[in-house]
Amino acid sequence: MAYYPHLPYHHHHHTSVPGERLSDPLDPLSADELKLAVEIIRHEYPSKHFAFNVVTLEEPPKAKYLHWKYSKEDAHKPERIALAVLLEKGVPGILEARVNLTKAEVIQIEHITGVCPILTADMLVNTEQIVRKDPAVIEQCILSGVPPDQMDHVYCDPWTIGYDERYGNTRRMQQAMMYYRSNEDDSQYSHPLDFCPIIDTEDQKVVAIDIPPVRRPLSKHKHSNFNKKDIEAELGKMREVKPISVTQPEGVNFRMKGRYIEWQNFRMHIGFNYREGIVLSDISYNDNGHIRPLFYRMSIAEMVVPYGNPEHPHQRKHAFDLGEYGAGYLTNPLALGCDCKGVIHYLDAHFVNNTGEVETVKNAICIHEEDDGVLFKHSDFRDKFRTTISARGIRLVISQIFTAANYEYMVYWIFHMDGVIECELKLTGILNTYAMNEGEDLKGWGTQVYPQVNAHNHQHLFCLRLNPMLDGYSNSVAVVDGVSGPGEPGSKENYYGNAFTTERTVPKTVKEAICDYNSDTSRTWDICNPNKLHPYSGKPVSYKLVSRETPRLMARPGSLVSNRAGFARHHIHVTPYKDGQIYPAGDYVPQTSGEPTKGLPEWIAEEPDASVDNTDIVVWHTFGITHFPAPEDFPLMPAEPIRLLLRPRNFFLRNPALDVPPSKNVTTSEVKQAHHHGNLHMMDMMKSLTDATSEFAFGEKFCEKHKGDHFF
Amino acid sequence: MAYYPHLPYHHHHHTSVPGERLSDPLDPLSADELKLAVEIIRHEYPSKHFAFNVVTLEEPPKAKYLHWKYSKEDAHKPERIALAVLLEKGVPGILEARVNLTKAEVIQIEHITGVCPILTADMLVNTEQIVRKDPAVIEQCILSGVPPDQMDHVYCDPWTIGYDERYGNTRRMQQAMMYYRSNEDDSQYSHPLDFCPIIDTEDQKVVAIDIPPVRRPLSKHKHSNFNKKDIEAELGKMREVKPISVTQPEGVNFRMKGRYIEWQNFRMHIGFNYREGIVLSDISYNDNGHIRPLFYRMSIAEMVVPYGNPEHPHQRKHAFDLGEYGAGYLTNPLALGCDCKGVIHYLDAHFVNNTGEVETVKNAICIHEEDDGVLFKHSDFRDKFRTTISARGIRLVISQIFTAANYEYMVYWIFHMDGVIECELKLTGILNTYAMNEGEDLKGWGTQVYPQVNAHNHQHLFCLRLNPMLDGYSNSVAVVDGVSGPGEPGSKENYYGNAFTTERTVPKTVKEAICDYNSDTSRTWDICNPNKLHPYSGKPVSYKLVSRETPRLMARPGSLVSNRAGFARHHIHVTPYKDGQIYPAGDYVPQTSGEPTKGLPEWIAEEPDASVDNTDIVVWHTFGITHFPAPEDFPLMPAEPIRLLLRPRNFFLRNPALDVPPSKNVTTSEVKQAHHHGNLHMMDMMKSLTDATSEFAFGEKFCEKHKGDHFF
Repeated sequence: MAYYPHLPYHHHHHTSVPGERLSDPLDPLSADELKLAVEIIRHEYPSKHFAFNVVTLEEPPKAKYLHWKYSKEDAHKPERIALAVLLEKGVPGILEARVNLTKAEVIQIEHITGVCPILTADMLVNTEQIVRKDPAVIEQCILSGVPPDQMDHVYCDPWTIGYDERYGNTRRMQQAMMYYRSNEDDSQYSHPLDFCPIIDTEDQKVVAIDIPPVRRPLSKHKHSNFNKKDIEAELGKMREVKPISVTQPEGVNFRMKGRYIEWQNFRMHIGFNYREGIVLSDISYNDNGHIRPLFYRMSIAEMVVPYGNPEHPHQRKHAFDLGEYGAGYLTNPLALGCDCKGVIHYLDAHFVNNTGEVETVKNAICIHEEDDGVLFKHSDFRDKFRTTISARGIRLVISQIFTAANYEYMVYWIFHMDGVIECELKLTGILNTYAMNEGEDLKGWGTQVYPQVNAHNHQHLFCLRLNPMLDGYSNSVAVVDGVSGPGEPGSKENYYGNAFTTERTVPKTVKEAICDYNSDTSRTWDICNPNKLHPYSGKPVSYKLVSRETPRLMARPGSLVSNRAGFARHHIHVTPYKDGQIYPAGDYVPQTSGEPTKGLPEWIAEEPDASVDNTDIVVWHTFGITHFPAPEDFPLMPAEPIRLLLRPRNFFLRNPALDVPPSKNVTTSEVKQAHHHGNLHMMDMMKSLTDATSEFAFGEKFCEKHKGDHFF
Repeated sequence: MAYYPHLPYHHHHHTSVPGERLSDPLDPLSADELKLAVEIIRHEYPSKHFAFNVVTLEEPPKAKYLHWKYSKEDAHKPERIALAVLLEKGVPGILEARVNLTKAEVIQIEHITGVCPILTADMLVNTEQIVRKDPAVIEQCILSGVPPDQMDHVYCDPWTIGYDERYGNTRRMQQAMMYYRSNEDDSQYSHPLDFCPIIDTEDQKVVAIDIPPVRRPLSKHKHSNFNKKDIEAELGKMREVKPISVTQPEGVNFRMKGRYIEWQNFRMHIGFNYREGIVLSDISYNDNGHIRPLFYRMSIAEMVVPYGNPEHPHQRKHAFDLGEYGAGYLTNPLALGCDCKGVIHYLDAHFVNNTGEVETVKNAICIHEEDDGVLFKHSDFRDKFRTTISARGIRLVISQIFTAANYEYMVYWIFHMDGVIECELKLTGILNTYAMNEGEDLKGWGTQVYPQVNAHNHQHLFCLRLNPMLDGYSNSVAVVDGVSGPGEPGSKENYYGNAFTTERTVPKTVKEAICDYNSDTSRTWDICNPNKLHPYSGKPVSYKLVSRETPRLMARPGSLVSNRAGFARHHIHVTPYKDGQIYPAGDYVPQTSGEPTKGLPEWIAEEPDASVDNTDIVVWHTFGITHFPAPEDFPLMPAEPIRLLLRPRNFFLRNPALDVPPSKNVTTSEVKQAHHHGNLHMMDMMKSLTDATSEFAFGEKFCEKHKGDHFF
């Protein structure tokens, strides 16, 4: 383990510290910094005509960052390093440049071959024009039934080729998912074409077309549209929906200091990059004045969407939406009252485009609060539930939405008042579709969701990356299984057969830590600090990962996607923390062959016996859903949620939310007094202590005597 | 299968039908009907002094109900039958009386022995007084360290005895969970006593005390309290929480017709009884004017909370909170802005108490709407996500909260705009606790959550009862497993190894249908109508049960609790529909021995080979959580959610929510026109079309040009 400063922390969010650091080494590169990085590179290499594939913050080494953070000395502040991925026309591979922005110099440049860069907008937006002009594609379109004068009605979703053994990874290749629309406002996905052009990204040429042995001409059915004007025309009217208004008349409960947010004892840094989108770092909890670190870094670090149709070339459909396109690059500008509701704070995102210009996505990150339902409640049966305490929760939501061609991924990082951290993903957008003939047997690999539209089975598998630092840098992961107690019913030790307990296994090494979900034991994982035991329970302080949406990778071991997406082979991997080990499918994902697998399996193979017990660890958790499409998902899919929880267990002395003001709190002695004074009825009618606006739906009368504590 | 009227339905919610039936045969008995039932019984048996244990609606036979419902003839209206469970002093067992309220006569009375009645408030509230006065209990209290003059500081939670072989079920017995509080406003659960008195309910006497071999004197630690005054005194202040206001300036989207609710195409009857609490019946969906039945009846029909400590007498802790106490009898009156927030409609609940008086629980059922996040969204990458459709959802929530001594159960029936029905349970309240000595080894059966407080491992297992009628009375359940395709990577049929599909098994008989969750295949259950295939997918119309929180019963087969709670042995059972088969642990649950098991296993044993394929079926689904307590759950547990979904699959022609007005809808041609007119910036700043109140958190400026479709 690297040298880290001694914990416990300084109280780093005292606002009174002079020289308050509003810029943090973890901040994404600002627009000015991006501009500077481009300038420095151009200045250093005046004769080169680089395309800028990526310019992003190279996060400081953890030890360096923490050293600065707790030294209070600006001299230790990590320098700002930009990592640039540069492409040069005709030069295979990529150039990785590191630019010290503090010193305004290129500190390293490296030519890496055998890898392909992430696909950026400039590579993708032209593909449609390329295929439209290609004679062989035009021939196929006409053959499929596209009117010859309607090539401008042909569209494609440009995908990375995934991996195709015919092309390897020396050239940058794309595959085009082909569609037709009768006009540009139609949904394209109800009219797929059955062939798949392959494009050389640099040459801007179609190099081949994959044509299936069985042809599937263009559907003559009408488009399945979803725009309001289409639905209104079809149904005569839209549904009436009276709105719900969410306001915060006294303002929000969070405040921003630079990119740090403080909310209800939580404090964290909100980062963002081209690849992972939102990155939460340095997450801590103010436990009655004691700042307790929780996680050094938390993000969705990769995902893969393998499709299940074995017919060529559908095996190539297994998008790594982060590693091949980037959840930052694909992120949507968010609209007030549409993507988030209520009182919103947005953060923008800045990128460099291929020509070196800075582009800004407005409102890339949404920060807001939501009502969180009943936080806790108890009533006493002795006085007909008059003795009551009830508190309502509020949650903090940090979110983004990104579009991966057809699909929308909505990412919600949710913080609850009871210390629980939730990651909720919602999937919406449109199914990737393929052409089919009327009455074609889909052989179970897909579903006809609309006439002549085949939506293939697929999975969405996400990799949550957690670098915990629960009360210190040295953490472990305990696998916790619920198990029946020993002894059959009738035995001395388990006479009534009801005994059960937990089996707690702490893997010692990287190899031992590879693990899957087990629903039979309701398996959970305690991310814990074995050096700090709870004073009451005697158990290590922990955050428990509770994650039930854990399909296994349906592709077989040794399959192309299993080879490429090594992280998806198991639900849990644990590795020792190393700077730079962020992306579990490798730093450069496009066109990896999977032989050998990049990223996590490499790191595991390097040091399978490295300790992951009581050290600085990274937990990689793969979760998601298996999607067997149905017509309800078409033409536009209603949002489908996937959730996991990180729950504090044996971490806090008690329920950490007891100081949240209750909306109702009537004690037994108060009930007795009210009874004594004949005021019980009035007490029962009491309104909430914390909610001034709730009301009855149909104008019923309500006793407005809202006297708080003074009702008798 | 019984004779049911022919489907499709008449459009039964046309409001123009004369003689509109506002009272429905499924309505709970009104206060007047309850009074009448009591009067009729008293009139019939003037010399008897019955205690009224239960007076409740006997729901009409399904065939009779449906016959009336679709005949439109009042002559077919089922008569109102009250089922009364009566107790007579000194007479073992119970009397079951059926009273025809329409004809004002007792139509049947039956004396049933060998069963014990549900425990009602009158039986429970006196128990504390009984134990306080009992000399042997006083002796044990003093021995435990309770000051002799403080017997009024001794409290108990009265529980049914569960089953104790020493007492069988000829006498009605209770066990008392003993506690001490220094004053009546303390939390009792931080000071448990170590012995357990057994009370004869009728004799109102302590008949025995279970005393453990190792004694655990009363803790001298201070109480772990949670009332505001205690927390404020301890911390100096409460946390500041600025409120969130939820309003509906244009009113709610639902309307009530009697006890039928209509909301966004859904329509259903909201029932309520002493046992299950909320019962939803006759749930249908208006699919563009065609009324499609979904479920005849839906409820949580039973639950059990088995504790995992094998030491005597803790095996008796396995409360059936519905069958032994009743989710209706235990239901809380709800407070506006506390239990639910926003614009609320409440329904009251009426019961008869043991003396035959009608008692009303005000606001027993809460009906309200909530914002439901993004309903669907898609943006086009071609114009930087300007081409966008985004709609926000609203959900309908029908809820109740009931208190089972220490625990609170919050039950939310949630209806989503995309046709999804969700059942969410949230657990809060207080852990059942037991005394321990300082430093005592808890042997893994529990956790010390506070000094000298042992919270035992336990499970909360709920039984969801569904009587589907998806587009007709004849339904099936298909077990759907995700499976890899045949053939290893490299094989002809699965060359790239990516093939996967579903295996769909339709059990033919009751016996075959017994089934557990399988996380390896992400198992779901399609409740389907095999007679109606989706025109596109060719698959049966269905609602898919998606339920991942499915721990197995940790108690071993043959254990007391496994014997008593047969429904909890497996996650899925399917039986042919029969009137009166509602309660899967039997009609009378207290003090059942489990030998033989009552309820579901009886019905299964009677007809193991009965068909459950393409007939009128009942699906019983057991789900829940296993709870290994932690100090964060104490002294008052933050709400913990458990969710399951019923998702329409192959049921609707397409996404049924496309007519929900989008909050943003910009088409490609509009983006092009705005670009042409130089108005893109204005378009980007456009506010939501459906949300007038969302705003920025920190007073940022916002371009207010909200011109809807007319922005260029």
